[in-house]
Amino acid sequence: MKLTRKDILGIQDFSVAEIELVLDTAESFIEVSTREIKKVPTLRGKTVINLFYEASTRTRTSFEIAGKRLSADTINISASTSSMVKGETLIDTAKNLEAMNPDIVVVRHSAAGAPHLLAGLLKQSIINAGDGAHEHPTQALLDMMTIRAKKGRIAGLNVAIIGDISHSRVARSNIYGLTKMGARVSVAGPATMIPRGVETLGVAAYTRIDDAIRGADIVMMLRIQTEREKNNIFPSLREYANHFSLNSRNITLAREDALIMHPGPMNRGVEISPDIADGPRSIILDQVTNGVAVRMALLYLLTGGDE
Amino acid sequence: MKLTRKDILGIQDFSVAEIELVLDTAESFIEVSTREIKKVPTLRGKTVINLFYEASTRTRTSFEIAGKRLSADTINISASTSSMVKGETLIDTAKNLEAMNPDIVVVRHSAAGAPHLLAGLLKQSIINAGDGAHEHPTQALLDMMTIRAKKGRIAGLNVAIIGDISHSRVARSNIYGLTKMGARVSVAGPATMIPRGVETLGVAAYTRIDDAIRGADIVMMLRIQTEREKNNIFPSLREYANHFSLNSRNITLAREDALIMHPGPMNRGVEISPDIADGPRSIILDQVTNGVAVRMALLYLLTGGDE
Amino acid sequence: MKLTRKDILGIQDFSVAEIELVLDTAESFIEVSTREIKKVPTLRGKTVINLFYEASTRTRTSFEIAGKRLSADTINISASTSSMVKGETLIDTAKNLEAMNPDIVVVRHSAAGAPHLLAGLLKQSIINAGDGAHEHPTQALLDMMTIRAKKGRIAGLNVAIIGDISHSRVARSNIYGLTKMGARVSVAGPATMIPRGVETLGVAAYTRIDDAIRGADIVMMLRIQTEREKNNIFPSLREYANHFSLNSRNITLAREDALIMHPGPMNRGVEISPDIADGPRSIILDQVTNGVAVRMALLYLLTGGDE
Repeated sequence: MKLTRKDILGIQDFSVAEIELVLDTAESFIEVSTREIKKVPTLRGKTVINLFYEASTRTRTSFEIAGKRLSADTINISASTSSMVKGETLIDTAKNLEAMNPDIVVVRHSAAGAPHLLAGLLKQSIINAGDGAHEHPTQALLDMMTIRAKKGRIAGLNVAIIGDISHSRVARSNIYGLTKMGARVSVAGPATMIPRGVETLGVAAYTRIDDAIRGADIVMMLRIQTEREKNNIFPSLREYANHFSLNSRNITLAREDALIMHPGPMNRGVEISPDIADGPRSIILDQVTNGVAVRMALLYLLTGGDE
Repeated sequence: MKLTRKDILGIQDFSVAEIELVLDTAESFIEVSTREIKKVPTLRGKTVINLFYEASTRTRTSFEIAGKRLSADTINISASTSSMVKGETLIDTAKNLEAMNPDIVVVRHSAAGAPHLLAGLLKQSIINAGDGAHEHPTQALLDMMTIRAKKGRIAGLNVAIIGDISHSRVARSNIYGLTKMGARVSVAGPATMIPRGVETLGVAAYTRIDDAIRGADIVMMLRIQTEREKNNIFPSLREYANHFSLNSRNITLAREDALIMHPGPMNRGVEISPDIADGPRSIILDQVTNGVAVRMALLYLLTGGDE
Repeated sequence: MKLTRKDILGIQDFSVAEIELVLDTAESFIEVSTREIKKVPTLRGKTVINLFYEASTRTRTSFEIAGKRLSADTINISASTSSMVKGETLIDTAKNLEAMNPDIVVVRHSAAGAPHLLAGLLKQSIINAGDGAHEHPTQALLDMMTIRAKKGRIAGLNVAIIGDISHSRVARSNIYGLTKMGARVSVAGPATMIPRGVETLGVAAYTRIDDAIRGADIVMMLRIQTEREKNNIFPSLREYANHFSLNSRNITLAREDALIMHPGPMNRGVEISPDIADGPRSIILDQVTNGVAVRMALLYLLTGGDE
């Protein structure tokens, strides 16, 4: 099978077969990063542009390493050093990049829909590396890959996602993907952070963390955006931590073999206590390792891999 | 024929034969960027440093892609992360880079003459990627390449350049190049933006856009530096747009087959109306594509290509 | 012989044999940077991450060029564009990078001990590219390489180090290395800039520059951190220059064949007069050239070179 779509914009429109193709392909790339010589010539002579309008270490680095291990030429553009300073529109920037004949443009933008706009305009493949509070499909794919690798399956698992569900592109993409793959998803957070009508996505919503993690196979904690504190979305970080932190007490409500995930970067002591983050059930760093493999898989599939 | 000069500092001292050599070589590189595998081993083991003291997406990215498609090692240095923070002089920075044995240093600097200073001090080749309001030779070369490719020739064409002629390195380099190549060049802009004595460069100068574009084969719009507005160089952007924007009305004064150029980034609605920028006569994105080819040609020629 | 250590953290715990191994290996790499094709396949498929929490041109560029000339994949991460913006801890950043399977992480950090912390946590090799006022081992190695190449030996030489000894990681690493290698080291600076008990490191300390450089074979000037002036560590830059600048007068106190070094970036007219910096005795740019070779040697040795 091969991926027939031009772009990776979100999990909402991914089929189960496509998700499985990406996960299977990514598993075959895991081995490359453990070799003595971590490089294959697959994308030699291809150009991958990482166009980041928001700061990021792990996602940009993950894509850059993925590209380089496939022998692609990788070009980083960050907003702070870009034409954005001169007021050029996103569309003009993208059309200009298109004219330089890249093969893939990876884009992160604070505006939901920015990658979709580019996908409609550019002949090249676009990968959404996070658009506003909308989607972060490569994160959901690496999360599903990690769950499947650790649990042997996704279908039938109970997955709890805890935090600011409303503003999290990680939550949204995972809800789309996990429910498609047959998991039962529960979400929990302060009432102000649960989107209205989230149940229509097929998830159970709670305002108490205990209700969501009871019986969970997977507990996925979201990063709380501490900069929102001053906007009074919640009273204080301390109060948030008191009610929604994953810790050694409430983790006992989950299944004994429950695994802990976090997309990073973590606020230790806020949404997750350090002993849980570093404990034996944490698979947070497996997520990072799998992230490189998922991105290698996508770069490979979008440039005609398996043809 | 081969390029015998060490540096690319400006078009003012280029001969017609040299311009034609660069354009011919660039045309032969166009094809590389359209291949399945967009890479040739020509500059393997060469080091190209992009030393940018001013923000730039397109020029830096264009040079980086050009270098990588030739298999050079490319190193980006931007002022914001450089020793400039520590107060080192440009000369000391350059001498230090020289000591690391690069082959070519591409430099953009806000001070006119900065690349010439480096060229005199360093044994490596210097390419001027824009120095203050002085020259931007690679832009003029890609502009001439685009005109020649679209029109079949440069000699005898009427070229109108519109905008802030005084402060534009793009205008200056194009005036030098186009007049050498036999084009008739007209410039237009507010009186405060026309340099005194510009006629001595062999161009006709006007303070009304209509006078310059009447009968033009090529209309080249310059980016207006909107940050100058507050310095009262012109009354307001709206007034500027009213008098000097290229739009569907005044474009009818140009020849029916006139083509529209802009070095980017564009201020849509200021110096150019969106329908013109995106219309069928616009060759603005061809300029970008040719930019990669021109820079590949220069990197190739400066490292001994055609020897 | 091969290097058996995992990390390069400081010269304090280096043996003479290890220093000599690095210097010998670096000498064999000097030639690579002077070839027509400046590239060897030694580190093909290895990933080197440059993690810089402080601005740097020369050190980051030197490591990047070193990695690329060895065919490694090099990834740059600077604090300004990193997760640091989001408040992630250094440890979490490092653990995340580890999970992406790099081979070597080069780290510069304003906190003394940061690289040591990472070395204890990560399975990959760490190279200290400067940690606070603690150590800068690659600088000391390139300095020793330069001295040995120019003088034929280190043992028995008189080396004067002048400046803010207390806050200089360059001074500290050189004191460790040069004394181990048998040089006689003198330091001089304002009393407030001489660490208490520095004599226990085996150096002679003075508060007058003349006393330190009298009879010196090597005079190593340190960069004065001009931003400290406002903290009243010394009265004024002018007064500092009057008392501690190396100039054509006091240089006559050194041996006739004395050589002048500076780690850069220089404050011309403050700690060193321009005629001395650019004079025939200056080997400041040799230091830079040797820096690339020393870093190539370390990358090579840490990834199993000479096995």
